[in-house]
Amino acid sequence: MANSDPTIFELGESNALAEAIKHFKPGSHTLVPSGDDAAVIRSNGRYAVTTDTMVQDRDFKLELSSAYDLGFKAVGTNLADVVAMGAVPTALVVAMAVPSDFKASWLSDFARGLQAGIDELSPGCEVVGGDLAAGEQLVIAVTAHGELNQEPVLRSGAKVSDQVVVAGTLGRAACGLSLLLSPDPTLAAAYPEWVAVQLRPTPPLQTGLELARLATSMLDLSDGLSTDSARIAQASSVTLKLNSSALLGYEAVLELAAQSMTARGFAAHERDWVLHGGEDHSFLATVPAGTKLPLGCKVIGEVIEQTVHPVMLDDQPLAARGWDSISS
Amino acid sequence: MANSDPTIFELGESNALAEAIKHFKPGSHTLVPSGDDAAVIRSNGRYAVTTDTMVQDRDFKLELSSAYDLGFKAVGTNLADVVAMGAVPTALVVAMAVPSDFKASWLSDFARGLQAGIDELSPGCEVVGGDLAAGEQLVIAVTAHGELNQEPVLRSGAKVSDQVVVAGTLGRAACGLSLLLSPDPTLAAAYPEWVAVQLRPTPPLQTGLELARLATSMLDLSDGLSTDSARIAQASSVTLKLNSSALLGYEAVLELAAQSMTARGFAAHERDWVLHGGEDHSFLATVPAGTKLPLGCKVIGEVIEQTVHPVMLDDQPLAARGWDSISS
Repeated sequence: MANSDPTIFELGESNALAEAIKHFKPGSHTLVPSGDDAAVIRSNGRYAVTTDTMVQDRDFKLELSSAYDLGFKAVGTNLADVVAMGAVPTALVVAMAVPSDFKASWLSDFARGLQAGIDELSPGCEVVGGDLAAGEQLVIAVTAHGELNQEPVLRSGAKVSDQVVVAGTLGRAACGLSLLLSPDPTLAAAYPEWVAVQLRPTPPLQTGLELARLATSMLDLSDGLSTDSARIAQASSVTLKLNSSALLGYEAVLELAAQSMTARGFAAHERDWVLHGGEDHSFLATVPAGTKLPLGCKVIGEVIEQTVHPVMLDDQPLAARGWDSISS
Repeated sequence: MANSDPTIFELGESNALAEAIKHFKPGSHTLVPSGDDAAVIRSNGRYAVTTDTMVQDRDFKLELSSAYDLGFKAVGTNLADVVAMGAVPTALVVAMAVPSDFKASWLSDFARGLQAGIDELSPGCEVVGGDLAAGEQLVIAVTAHGELNQEPVLRSGAKVSDQVVVAGTLGRAACGLSLLLSPDPTLAAAYPEWVAVQLRPTPPLQTGLELARLATSMLDLSDGLSTDSARIAQASSVTLKLNSSALLGYEAVLELAAQSMTARGFAAHERDWVLHGGEDHSFLATVPAGTKLPLGCKVIGEVIEQTVHPVMLDDQPLAARGWDSISS
């Protein structure tokens, strides 16, 4: 009897890739799709390129993230980087090391997650290439590309008196991770929307592109507000002064989850999630004071002259306590 | 006393990357280099993109390949894919999972190898981005980009009566690997030039670009002549008929190494290396009969009407026996 769900090893690389590729839809910028030595992408003169790696047991746990989740998340995290430059996502390539006892159905589910992320976040983008190798541990390296219809928005352009602006949520992915990692499974079950942000982040790419047109500096909030604010501050030689009262709304929605965790004896603080939690993949930008902001953007502070502290929260220094993918 | 060679873990991702990046030289196509959310690359309307993964103990062994070798090889293998489309290499991004006890000096040596590969093979190209994560096993995923100044050369364009052409060497990397894997270390020491092709392949990129301008189909010979010939045959719905006498020269230079191995009791056949060995990253192309070829290219066969056998060697079917990165 034929094996109805062979391992990737049993199928071989070519067949396994061929199965996965069936889930991908054509994009609107692709001249030559996957299947040759390289893909060919249309470009209007310049393009943005970024790469990001997700490693099993470090960036995700297979007990918590399904293959579909991981595909979706790989798209969200990488397309946020593209948009943070002011570029419209066009093409992704996905390189993976996969334990050879993984089922072919796992790979198909991963591919479905990739396509679902594209469909939801940035239709018109396409997975144009991939590489699959056997490894001891699952490693997913995605490189994403975008077309620039404006000047690229760097981290280094913030000016004194600019407003500090966020597009998207803060702290939800960190809350979701705390819930998922708690030994009490009823906690994650009680707050599925924050868990979903952790597993399948949905950065507001369209709002991000609108914000990019106005921004003097911008980045993807992947490592937390405190860490990423310091990056803009240091690149721009300014200090970012955040306004704690402007953050209360982000905290309020997470308060109940924090209380539930605390009541069960687990340390949890909604303010920590908002200030230091990454992975919502929202956008942090600076815009000239008085700029009319797109819907979905919120002013959370201002840019001041550089001090010894790259980031202040009200009148107190705010230390970077975000994620470092090696030493965390 | 300060630790003179800390581990990557001790340094942290940002510092380790900053150290490595010092070894990179600016390229001639880069508008925004590494350091922001994404790099920005100039393009003349379309670009080629390809990705490839190298996994420890699968694609290389740390006992055999130095960090420098791996950096050099990552460049050679990926730029060959770019050139095989007819594109001029412009930019690379490098995503890695690295065991956190690796020394920072290892990462610097890897970066030096990347830059040395670029300097030797394709000056003007630049490493424009990277991502570093802690992993159990070393995984190196490189994505390479190239600018197209001609129509892309696909695998599917071979026509009946075309000549089959090789630019570059055949079988040397496979010979080098056999020598390296042999338990007798004097063998590898006796044939350092074939070992070097395995460790630091130098695909003839300039010749490849000249050949691409003439080719009806082309690919990078990464998985061996038998396997890669079948890829062109299948994509083009033709049969490739290779001429064994045209391969004798490739075999002759490896004969002595094969004899040395056989004399010490190890199985070794120079013809197997030439027919089935990959990783020289030479180019296989088809060109119309009578085309004047660039220097360094050799006719090794002809394209005939499709038969049940995608590849023939003289009058015998030649089965694909090359590398599959999952099931090999």
